[in-house]
Amino acid sequence: MNHYGIGIDVGGTTIKLGIFDETGILYHEATIKTRAEQQGAFILTDIADAVQRSIKDSGIDQVKIIGIGIGIPGPVDALGVVSECVNLGWKQTAVTASLEAATGLPCLAENDANVAALGEVWKGGGAGYHNMVMMTLGTGVGGGIILQDHIQSGAHHAGGELGHIKVHLDETEVCGCGKKGCLEQYASASGIVRMAKNALQQYPASRLAKMTTFTCKDVFDAMEQQDELAAIVVSKVNTYLAHACATISCVCDPEVFVIGGGVSLAGAALLTGIQEQFQTFCFPSAAKTEFKLAVLGNQAGIYGAVKLVFDRLL
Amino acid sequence: MNHYGIGIDVGGTTIKLGIFDETGILYHEATIKTRAEQQGAFILTDIADAVQRSIKDSGIDQVKIIGIGIGIPGPVDALGVVSECVNLGWKQTAVTASLEAATGLPCLAENDANVAALGEVWKGGGAGYHNMVMMTLGTGVGGGIILQDHIQSGAHHAGGELGHIKVHLDETEVCGCGKKGCLEQYASASGIVRMAKNALQQYPASRLAKMTTFTCKDVFDAMEQQDELAAIVVSKVNTYLAHACATISCVCDPEVFVIGGGVSLAGAALLTGIQEQFQTFCFPSAAKTEFKLAVLGNQAGIYGAVKLVFDRLL
Repeated sequence: MNHYGIGIDVGGTTIKLGIFDETGILYHEATIKTRAEQQGAFILTDIADAVQRSIKDSGIDQVKIIGIGIGIPGPVDALGVVSECVNLGWKQTAVTASLEAATGLPCLAENDANVAALGEVWKGGGAGYHNMVMMTLGTGVGGGIILQDHIQSGAHHAGGELGHIKVHLDETEVCGCGKKGCLEQYASASGIVRMAKNALQQYPASRLAKMTTFTCKDVFDAMEQQDELAAIVVSKVNTYLAHACATISCVCDPEVFVIGGGVSLAGAALLTGIQEQFQTFCFPSAAKTEFKLAVLGNQAGIYGAVKLVFDRLL
Repeated sequence: MNHYGIGIDVGGTTIKLGIFDETGILYHEATIKTRAEQQGAFILTDIADAVQRSIKDSGIDQVKIIGIGIGIPGPVDALGVVSECVNLGWKQTAVTASLEAATGLPCLAENDANVAALGEVWKGGGAGYHNMVMMTLGTGVGGGIILQDHIQSGAHHAGGELGHIKVHLDETEVCGCGKKGCLEQYASASGIVRMAKNALQQYPASRLAKMTTFTCKDVFDAMEQQDELAAIVVSKVNTYLAHACATISCVCDPEVFVIGGGVSLAGAALLTGIQEQFQTFCFPSAAKTEFKLAVLGNQAGIYGAVKLVFDRLL
């Protein structure tokens, strides 16, 4: 008999849901809006409704569905309880217990960054590897650590918080976490824009200096067109990322780094830049560590969430 | 029936051996010299002889001994083969296969730093914890990562190479690994002496400036006596260590850091210094991470080596 599972990725704006079989084939996909109003009181019932509707729409026999995996944008404890989740408006919420009661299906919950990493190592950029570090360069910098096929989320939910690795001890501006010099301040989309803005006065001839406002993509585009300021900023981004990756290798030494998130749309240029700089910093035995781009995009979460189910309930 | 195992720690000068029961009671201990001559050709036969002699001397019934665990000062692959070990004079050596043939007992091998970490988490400074990072501050800086009770040695034997975390990107002197700015250049015994020497000219009144040569212990002793140079050096050591620990927390987020090695004999002063500085750097959710001193000293290796046996063969 084929086994099926449901993977759910809860974001601040939308909630994605997918029904998969154990080989990773996606049979049905749905997206609903995240209703964060009234402290997110509707979110779990909305999800339970979407689960029932999706099962029906998919035509899959409900008895073949063995469980639900769910990724949450915040820390989740071993019992599936979230103590607080700002993006969803939640105070303490027993996610898995509520969903199990509402759907009759076993439910497993994990932090969304870890779940996305699990998705990428199952069916994405890390497929075929057992030890992978995923780094997601988006608005912030997130991460997930997979060692021997399992998520390592740490003792205080700080595991995989790669955006808060300190890479610059002399930074004067404060990071969102309250500390200074975090990787996120340089290698996130907003960090890249910040660095470029800070350097505008030094490079008045830069095409970026002529724009009233610009994005991270503009910085990479300018670099492609030989803009000196943009080239210097991107080189710094590569250096900070390579430094962080070399440090991560000295701790858990993955086979592969998978780079995802909006910034990774810069593609091969970014990957090559990091990989070259990595050789400057890495412990010699880690020199052959591979670098790949993430491939699942915003589906990584539903792949990883359902993999929780197949890993733990099959 | 009680189960017994043999733990062996192979060092460049001596080889330690202990016979333990599964609860961690040490029944018999022996030390032999490491004969590194002739490419270490005698080492494994010397060990096999010591095993036979120790079993006899201990009076324990041989059938109750379930296996041998051995820590090697270099990388060991999953099949128990060492590709090269400079300290022992070894070229490619099938450690476990040779010892199994010579003793008739199953044998498991691991890198010595990882094995020492496993010893400390079993019966030492990390006892009672499941997720521990051990940092050994000796001639160099070594480490071992224990997550969910298991050694994480990484994909290229770089896991736990904590001495080569880059903490200073502007360093001009080269580390033993060939790169620059490694933690080992500041927080090892030799690194501490190096930093003090580099600062002598600036602090001619320091008591260290009056000594023809001095050790790491002299630096800590001078600090206790309010020597300005020594205080500055020790403060830097604490900062570098705290920075590295904060970074490690962002990757694998242990419950506890256990600090061992000769430098850790500085004791509570060192521990308090690191812990205070850690608060400056750490991701907020990791703020409660604990810091402890290692307690097993040079017995950590035999404890950890025998734990491999009980973990994998019982």
